[in-house]
Amino acid sequence: MQKNKNRISVPGFLANGISSGIKDSDQKDLALIYSTVPARVAAVFTKNSFKAAPLLIDAERVKKGTAQAIITNSGCANAATGKEGYKDALSVSAALAGQLKIKEELILMGSTGVIGKRLPVKKIAGGMVKLVKGLNGFGIEDAETAMMTTDKYPKIAIRKGIVGARDIIICGIAKGAGMIEPNMATLLTYVMTNALIDSKALNTVFHQAIDNTFNSISVDGCMSTNDMAIILANGLAGNNPLERAQARLQRFRDMLSDVLMELCQAVVRDGEGATKFISINVEGAKSRSDARRAAYAVANSNLVKTAFFGEDPNWGRILAALGSSGIPLEKERVSLSIGDVLVFSQDSPTNLNLNKLREIFQRDRIDVRIWLGGGDKSYCVYTSDLSYDYVKINADYST
Amino acid sequence: MQKNKNRISVPGFLANGISSGIKDSDQKDLALIYSTVPARVAAVFTKNSFKAAPLLIDAERVKKGTAQAIITNSGCANAATGKEGYKDALSVSAALAGQLKIKEELILMGSTGVIGKRLPVKKIAGGMVKLVKGLNGFGIEDAETAMMTTDKYPKIAIRKGIVGARDIIICGIAKGAGMIEPNMATLLTYVMTNALIDSKALNTVFHQAIDNTFNSISVDGCMSTNDMAIILANGLAGNNPLERAQARLQRFRDMLSDVLMELCQAVVRDGEGATKFISINVEGAKSRSDARRAAYAVANSNLVKTAFFGEDPNWGRILAALGSSGIPLEKERVSLSIGDVLVFSQDSPTNLNLNKLREIFQRDRIDVRIWLGGGDKSYCVYTSDLSYDYVKINADYST
Repeated sequence: MQKNKNRISVPGFLANGISSGIKDSDQKDLALIYSTVPARVAAVFTKNSFKAAPLLIDAERVKKGTAQAIITNSGCANAATGKEGYKDALSVSAALAGQLKIKEELILMGSTGVIGKRLPVKKIAGGMVKLVKGLNGFGIEDAETAMMTTDKYPKIAIRKGIVGARDIIICGIAKGAGMIEPNMATLLTYVMTNALIDSKALNTVFHQAIDNTFNSISVDGCMSTNDMAIILANGLAGNNPLERAQARLQRFRDMLSDVLMELCQAVVRDGEGATKFISINVEGAKSRSDARRAAYAVANSNLVKTAFFGEDPNWGRILAALGSSGIPLEKERVSLSIGDVLVFSQDSPTNLNLNKLREIFQRDRIDVRIWLGGGDKSYCVYTSDLSYDYVKINADYST
Repeated sequence: MQKNKNRISVPGFLANGISSGIKDSDQKDLALIYSTVPARVAAVFTKNSFKAAPLLIDAERVKKGTAQAIITNSGCANAATGKEGYKDALSVSAALAGQLKIKEELILMGSTGVIGKRLPVKKIAGGMVKLVKGLNGFGIEDAETAMMTTDKYPKIAIRKGIVGARDIIICGIAKGAGMIEPNMATLLTYVMTNALIDSKALNTVFHQAIDNTFNSISVDGCMSTNDMAIILANGLAGNNPLERAQARLQRFRDMLSDVLMELCQAVVRDGEGATKFISINVEGAKSRSDARRAAYAVANSNLVKTAFFGEDPNWGRILAALGSSGIPLEKERVSLSIGDVLVFSQDSPTNLNLNKLREIFQRDRIDVRIWLGGGDKSYCVYTSDLSYDYVKINADYST
């Protein structure tokens, strides 16, 4: 995680974050990312049937492969707002196009906050002059801060490397702390890079990298209406273009995956009320989808999550959750370890050291490994515990 | 719910509940139900892959269609205990057969408590003489109390009626407050009746009644290793036998469903930390399984459950949960009402009275109705909210 905001900058990208009055307090609530030249774009959207209005517009615009700006408000999701909500989003994009003097189709939009409320278009329009005027090369952290809702801290990750004979920077920012579940992990993630990359290649590597990172985390098993991830690649590095089936594309994808993995782990660590970071690694499955289903059954079990919060080495709940996952299991072949303690094997509890296990449950990070013994496929999910604070944060959110 | 224990009695059934020292305190932890004559039996078991040892034995014994006693301990689940746990359960059944002087195959067993611990067979055997000696016609409430773990109160329901020209009594008891999710709703449910009923008919009506009651509730979405429901019908009423495709069988099934519905609603009301009773009714679905999936997506959403706990009229979370259910949705046709307030219709929020909605969220019982507008199938799920106390109860259970 990058702390020094002065060092966060991606060639050709300007950003800003301001308070426009959407939130009651003076908190920042309006963010803008802007590329000085049109950029190649790829995006992944939530699979929720009630997609927020801005996402419906974005999905159409992204198809053209080019975008130049992303405006995001927090404090209102503009989801479940029907045709009016759609018009509201369009009016934001029209106003911003006027300010930036670019085509409206080059503008993407994100919203996060309470569902079912109309977007405060006047406030957003009122803040737009200031938002655009303040665009600057070191505004990424301000933009990130303006996207936050229940997040405790901003999440920014950067990787630099030489790809295609030029210095490439990939910088990602993410907002999200609750409603975290795949398709997409409930949040907004924006990635900026100066790489020159072919549209199809960008789309492919972005989807692959998301699948292995943000689609593998869970805080509360809830899928939001507003989740999306967008990457803008403005090509200003002037590198040898990245195209499919190249070794240098692989290098770019690895850097991108690193950025996304750092961000998604930060999202889990910042999970609403989270006190622990927990990995659930299922191995030896017949298929990746079986492994995934098993891992999520454990990761999303409230009984497992409360046991971790309570530092109660009640490992039987992990087995109970695994057993309820619905995947075919040969239980004689299943093994379970927590940290480096094997707790269950050959259909029986091991003769374990309970004090050692108790000590592992007291750690900030806990690694759970499940071997199914039925194949060679695996899946790893990152999750958090379920605490009083999760309930507190979510019991009184909209009012 | 029957309060006066002296009135609870089913002809030919004796019961008792004692403390055998499994739990640290003096709480009752060992329960016995006994029919003076062998009874017809039907049962439904959890679909968890890690079924507890007693359930594996019961499943075999129930196939023969006859049973006479059910012994149940709380404080230890005897699940994930392998071959040793299986032997432990068998030794309990052998000891009880000796005490009751009946065939071992007529004995069924249930266990509830922490998973992965060996059954304290010596304590159970030590308490067995007292348990059997104390069997009496009014011991049902003691038996029920001995099955409780995190339950706040015993759950007993009775229906009486004339069926097949005789007085029929159906009495059910249930234990369960957490790990509540269908297949089976995580709990132990035992039903006693004096009705004379054909084995196949008993099996059919019991499965139907369970499907419409206990398989329609959820407290925390967690499926236990120990869930089961058993019905014993000892035939002592001497009624005209109940067989398939009879009007009087229908009457019996209705009474049975009433008993199970009362019990399962009591289980939800007693849900760990529950402060609200919530019904999620999904109508207008293309299929019952779609309606069920949608209803459970809402019922099991932690964000929905915490909003109810916080009495926060954040209805957008219900739509978000519905939208994440994965069923095909025409969102223009979806309507949502809470209590008698329509909050969403024709793809837009209604012009609702927020104070009215707030008042509904403050009630003890909240009814959510979702119309999908795509067919004529429906499903109703009963659930509870997610409170601090749920986390508290479950953060420190095993130790």
